Amino acid sequence: MTARTTPTLKKLVGLAQGVVQEVGRKKNPALQIPLRTLANVTFNEKKSIIELGRGTQSRQFFNVSMAKRFMQTFLVANACKELIRQGKTTSIRDLYYMTKHTIGDSTENTFDEQEESDPIIEDLEVTINALREELNLFASSKGGLVGEITLLDGGDTIDCRRLGTGGWQIPSITEPEVIQFKKCTAKFVLLVEKDAVWRRLNEDKFWRDHKCILAHGQGMAPRGVRRLVYRLNAELGLPVYVLVDNDPWGFYIYSVLKQGSINLAYESIRMAIPAARFIGLSSFDAVKFKLDKVHLIKLAQEDISRAKQILEYPWFQKKPWQEEIKQMLATGVKYELEAFSSKGISFITQTYLPRKLKEKDWLD
Amino acid sequence: MTARTTPTLKKLVGLAQGVVQEVGRKKNPALQIPLRTLANVTFNEKKSIIELGRGTQSRQFFNVSMAKRFMQTFLVANACKELIRQGKTTSIRDLYYMTKHTIGDSTENTFDEQEESDPIIEDLEVTINALREELNLFASSKGGLVGEITLLDGGDTIDCRRLGTGGWQIPSITEPEVIQFKKCTAKFVLLVEKDAVWRRLNEDKFWRDHKCILAHGQGMAPRGVRRLVYRLNAELGLPVYVLVDNDPWGFYIYSVLKQGSINLAYESIRMAIPAARFIGLSSFDAVKFKLDKVHLIKLAQEDISRAKQILEYPWFQKKPWQEEIKQMLATGVKYELEAFSSKGISFITQTYLPRKLKEKDWLD
Repeated sequence: MTARTTPTLKKLVGLAQGVVQEVGRKKNPALQIPLRTLANVTFNEKKSIIELGRGTQSRQFFNVSMAKRFMQTFLVANACKELIRQGKTTSIRDLYYMTKHTIGDSTENTFDEQEESDPIIEDLEVTINALREELNLFASSKGGLVGEITLLDGGDTIDCRRLGTGGWQIPSITEPEVIQFKKCTAKFVLLVEKDAVWRRLNEDKFWRDHKCILAHGQGMAPRGVRRLVYRLNAELGLPVYVLVDNDPWGFYIYSVLKQGSINLAYESIRMAIPAARFIGLSSFDAVKFKLDKVHLIKLAQEDISRAKQILEYPWFQKKPWQEEIKQMLATGVKYELEAFSSKGISFITQTYLPRKLKEKDWLD
Repeated sequence: MTARTTPTLKKLVGLAQGVVQEVGRKKNPALQIPLRTLANVTFNEKKSIIELGRGTQSRQFFNVSMAKRFMQTFLVANACKELIRQGKTTSIRDLYYMTKHTIGDSTENTFDEQEESDPIIEDLEVTINALREELNLFASSKGGLVGEITLLDGGDTIDCRRLGTGGWQIPSITEPEVIQFKKCTAKFVLLVEKDAVWRRLNEDKFWRDHKCILAHGQGMAPRGVRRLVYRLNAELGLPVYVLVDNDPWGFYIYSVLKQGSINLAYESIRMAIPAARFIGLSSFDAVKFKLDKVHLIKLAQEDISRAKQILEYPWFQKKPWQEEIKQMLATGVKYELEAFSSKGISFITQTYLPRKLKEKDWLD
């Protein structure tokens, strides 16, 4: 048990004590679990993040349809308490196995599939207002980092300026107790969707020339990457630029980083980076950088539907974003980061990014 | 251009010169490309690796059905030559864009999809007997490493004993010129299928207690990981232990590491690790380590078919392997590495692996 997790442990114990008290009063013990539904999610324009509303559901013990989930909630809470007590972290798949067993002499299992235990974890997170990472649980990790910062990871000093071609594997838990920032000489963070592009930028030492931290999330950035970049922005005040493919999926990746997601709205407050800037690829970049038409890809029907959907999201209502998405729909094409390689292997390092940064050609 | 890639550059230039000579002699220029088909693959029992046979196909310029691919081969060869000349590496997706353009005033493209350029890369690799990495091309990278070794990566010293919770992101190109081994205090390499299990072992500092290098490949180990572990075995003489789920896919992951794959048989000689040992999960481990039945998973129909298929592979003909696969089929169950978490968070670190190593309970 450590300083980081003590408050979470207290909350878990408090949750259980509340139920014990109810039982002592011969009442029907119940948990009030905030609802994670679209109807209970709002976009806070002022803060520019997606927030959870005040709606809750009551999960009662003496209720045939709720008793099993009530029991499951406490099984998961107990396993997390045990993890924290031992100072160990584990995966959500591990947790499923830790809490799965056959009940007594019955043939009934506590859990049959991980699909049952995962939502319980989310219930618990939102009920006691703790991130998964504070319950000592991690998701699958992806993502890497190099650049102008020295950090402490589990007590080891990592100089991210000296990590060769490989870089630092961003762990899944990047909370302040595990990862601390030491000497930072970076002026901004560049978060790239694709690891192949990250590697091109690392090989060209873009981060050294432009004094930045270069990170990637292998597609949609996982929680550890989001939380780390959030902290780099919140604690060190570093601007964050996001570089993704020019397609609706790229826009979506950016929007999750910036405002959070509907599914996990309760985490926005500690993960979303409202200041994150979309540096590209913009639907206007193809013309601006004279990309050959042969490297553009026709939008598929699902791209068109997705783009139209995104067009309606409250967080894409700003005029430049509306123009951006409408331009994609009007041209009917999308294109990838790699497309610029047709203009030279290091075009993105030497021409595209420097010009975008110099001209402040990004979207908020 | 560097010492590492000079021989490859010579081969590429030689390939082109050969064609120019043929043209000078007014002959039909042709390439002899070794066949990458199942029929042209054999299992070398003595070396214990999958090898490519001597079968080749002729790719001719003056042949309507071959002219386009002939041209594509030289487009790719030229792009690789350019990469090597500039001392840069790139992804195979990048290469696709680098070589894609519309031919003259026609509407014909050099390539329409990456599915066309990828096999050309393989053709080129096998024709000039160079690994993709020697053509300065990388695949998507996955995998991480910590443990008892100091290495040089792109000139930076990486002490893998001091990499915290994150670890070193294994790059896609791990050739000797990029990665060099310095002080090694490891007695073996443990390669784990799953990154979640890798993290458990790292958190428990298994590598420190057992003096090893701890690597993972996030599922099927990618080329960079395979090549690195190959080198750790070949150059430093470190034994290699492979830890995978108990299912046919886990067995297959192990077999690719050990003997190579049918698709890429021409690479076996520089990637396959015949000495690699399968430390688990064995179909006999469930009983040996008293795993609760509730944590076993019934084999799906595709698992059964796959297991039967593997049973016939020449490289699984040794008696212990036949028993292993037959045991899986007889019990009708598989199970995951995480299943042991039901016996304690660190059961795999403190009980399972130490006992397996102590009792030399592995398969060759």
